Amino acid sequence: MPDISHRGQVMPASPIRKLVPYAEAAKKKGIRVYHLNIGQPDIETPPSALDAVRNFHFKVLEYSHSGGNESYRRKLVKYYSSKGIDINYHQIIITTGGSEAILFGFLGCMDPGDEIIIPEPFYANYNGFAVEAGIKVVPVTSYINTGFALPSAEDFEKAVTKRTRAIMICNPNNPTGYLYSLEEWETLRQLALKYNLYLFSDEAYREFCYEGSHFSAMQLEGMDEHVVLMDTISKRYSACGGRIGAFITRNKGLHQIVMKFAQARLSPPTFAQILGEAAVDLPENYFETTREEYRKRRDLLVRRLNEMPGVFCPNPGGAFYAMASLPVPDADVFCQWLLESFSYKGETVMLAPASGFYGSAGSGLNEVRLAYVLNQESIASAMDILQAALEVYPARTSDKSKTVLTTHY
Amino acid sequence: MPDISHRGQVMPASPIRKLVPYAEAAKKKGIRVYHLNIGQPDIETPPSALDAVRNFHFKVLEYSHSGGNESYRRKLVKYYSSKGIDINYHQIIITTGGSEAILFGFLGCMDPGDEIIIPEPFYANYNGFAVEAGIKVVPVTSYINTGFALPSAEDFEKAVTKRTRAIMICNPNNPTGYLYSLEEWETLRQLALKYNLYLFSDEAYREFCYEGSHFSAMQLEGMDEHVVLMDTISKRYSACGGRIGAFITRNKGLHQIVMKFAQARLSPPTFAQILGEAAVDLPENYFETTREEYRKRRDLLVRRLNEMPGVFCPNPGGAFYAMASLPVPDADVFCQWLLESFSYKGETVMLAPASGFYGSAGSGLNEVRLAYVLNQESIASAMDILQAALEVYPARTSDKSKTVLTTHY
Repeated sequence: MPDISHRGQVMPASPIRKLVPYAEAAKKKGIRVYHLNIGQPDIETPPSALDAVRNFHFKVLEYSHSGGNESYRRKLVKYYSSKGIDINYHQIIITTGGSEAILFGFLGCMDPGDEIIIPEPFYANYNGFAVEAGIKVVPVTSYINTGFALPSAEDFEKAVTKRTRAIMICNPNNPTGYLYSLEEWETLRQLALKYNLYLFSDEAYREFCYEGSHFSAMQLEGMDEHVVLMDTISKRYSACGGRIGAFITRNKGLHQIVMKFAQARLSPPTFAQILGEAAVDLPENYFETTREEYRKRRDLLVRRLNEMPGVFCPNPGGAFYAMASLPVPDADVFCQWLLESFSYKGETVMLAPASGFYGSAGSGLNEVRLAYVLNQESIASAMDILQAALEVYPARTSDKSKTVLTTHY
Repeated sequence: MPDISHRGQVMPASPIRKLVPYAEAAKKKGIRVYHLNIGQPDIETPPSALDAVRNFHFKVLEYSHSGGNESYRRKLVKYYSSKGIDINYHQIIITTGGSEAILFGFLGCMDPGDEIIIPEPFYANYNGFAVEAGIKVVPVTSYINTGFALPSAEDFEKAVTKRTRAIMICNPNNPTGYLYSLEEWETLRQLALKYNLYLFSDEAYREFCYEGSHFSAMQLEGMDEHVVLMDTISKRYSACGGRIGAFITRNKGLHQIVMKFAQARLSPPTFAQILGEAAVDLPENYFETTREEYRKRRDLLVRRLNEMPGVFCPNPGGAFYAMASLPVPDADVFCQWLLESFSYKGETVMLAPASGFYGSAGSGLNEVRLAYVLNQESIASAMDILQAALEVYPARTSDKSKTVLTTHY
């Protein structure tokens, strides 16, 4: 039998999905499982955008332009302009999900052995794309007791080596929900200029900010050659299955290079480009309703978590995730126990252990990520379950270790 | 400004698309351009499959399973079974186009520096995916005077090194249209077993065979651990823009590894999975009509080409491409001249110079690839234009160099 590649072997399995077999087993036993483990929104995809797909006119499902339909890219210019992001359609490459935008950035800006600095905890699939591209993720740690604020410039500088090529930020952050401040962006700008680095900005959750407004890396001054915006419509319009994202940069040389990667895979999916284009025409207040719903869920989730003895959850400023520390020694074991050995009124809850979001081994062991993608009633039920579970969990640790917020953010 | 990656710089531009600016300039001058340069079929996508997309029921466009919808994979088992390919749905991973299936194979089976042997001329984007994966494509040359039959076992063996991990075959072949025989498959089987190699089989054009029936690599005996089928619905159902393909192997270890790559990018596009699933239910005779149309076009194209002095075109057994040698010293220059400096009754023709399909520099310089994806009337007009062009082309070479078929195949 021929060998599997080394990179295939070291490719990380999804930390969000690795508990799936236990959830399936629980369901087979008749237990209802509340899924707070995965960022699949329950919000309806805008009906008008879905209708646009239903009403397509073509008779041949042709390749689109490798950079995406020009009509869609021109529409997107309007969308970004309404967010204070000034670009033209030549600066946009439509990608197959935000995933492909990230992979294109890694491939186009870095060679095998190069390094990218990312504050941890971070979106676990960055690791996967890094393995595919042969690059090294260098984590700098952010901490739950500062609400996962940006690590200091000094911490970043300690992580810089001669192989460092980029810094990557997700704003608002997945998994922490942290919304970066203007001061933090200025820190990042200075670092990128000082060390001549790319600054990758994953803004998948741009529309979901609850504390203050969103600032995009594309709005940084003097950074046209450095900034790459990696975007997606997956969360914005609850359109995860469409697989439409965007790679956006004002750096012409980089754009040309990435177009070669785009041409090799021919084109992004046609149907969901239609959806994305129609979604730009949604009324101004479309996001208000969705945002308000997420805000209520967040408030409920965070309040309930912090009311539980030994649990601490900093209030996330955006996205639809919260990170909480639990009075348990190992959240991986606890999350599996929730599915395998616990139920409350015939129900249990599935959480994502945070360890998979850290690049440093042994970090975040008592933390979990919770996605508030269920309605408030379900979140309340899930919190009842979690509370009951923590009360009886055999390996529960002392409440005295409860984390507290040490700085304002 | 930060550096572009080395791999981004060496990433090949698409040889099929590099003449596009000249075509656009010709059109701006009012010249009609017949596009024989690109494999975008003009055949209508099956209306029933398009209707299935129009009639979707969901309200939330969710991620699908990372390996593709189970219902679709189960349907595909029926499709493959009807082609004599015996697999189960656990052996199928739905990919974003055949492109992603190829990339997953390169990433999962090879590490940077590893080598894959591919008969040339070959589909040019294999080069692009190889650059992305950091692997080396080692070409073994097939020749127009044998109709592009498989190179000998000895030629393959000369190309094997200790870094060789795989052989890749496209059957029927893009760009040559060559349909491999059972004897040639046996040669490949022996090579894969002798040197413990993967055998990748790109069968995008399976349904379009005009001389004899199609043999799939999945039908080889004793090769379960070696064979990977890389498939796509793009050409089968004229559904290029859907971006749906499949990575299929009976090798369980490899399947598990590739699922990790699939999970990192979350899921393949939802809408076109619906299309693909519906297409399996097309009537038995669906392909007959399409195949008959392509066959007529092929017959017309090949006859007209061989009637031109100095032109030779072996009769392709499948796909919808033909390769022809022209009485010109450099087909790149000639194809550009067709667009830039020539027209016949206000029309011209766009061809793909074959040089971009060869891995060996200087090979195929007088060859072009023609895709017969236009109706017969357009093909006849395009041949009139090509004939007229060759008659007046200033750099035309002597007809005495005309290639002739040297062996039966």
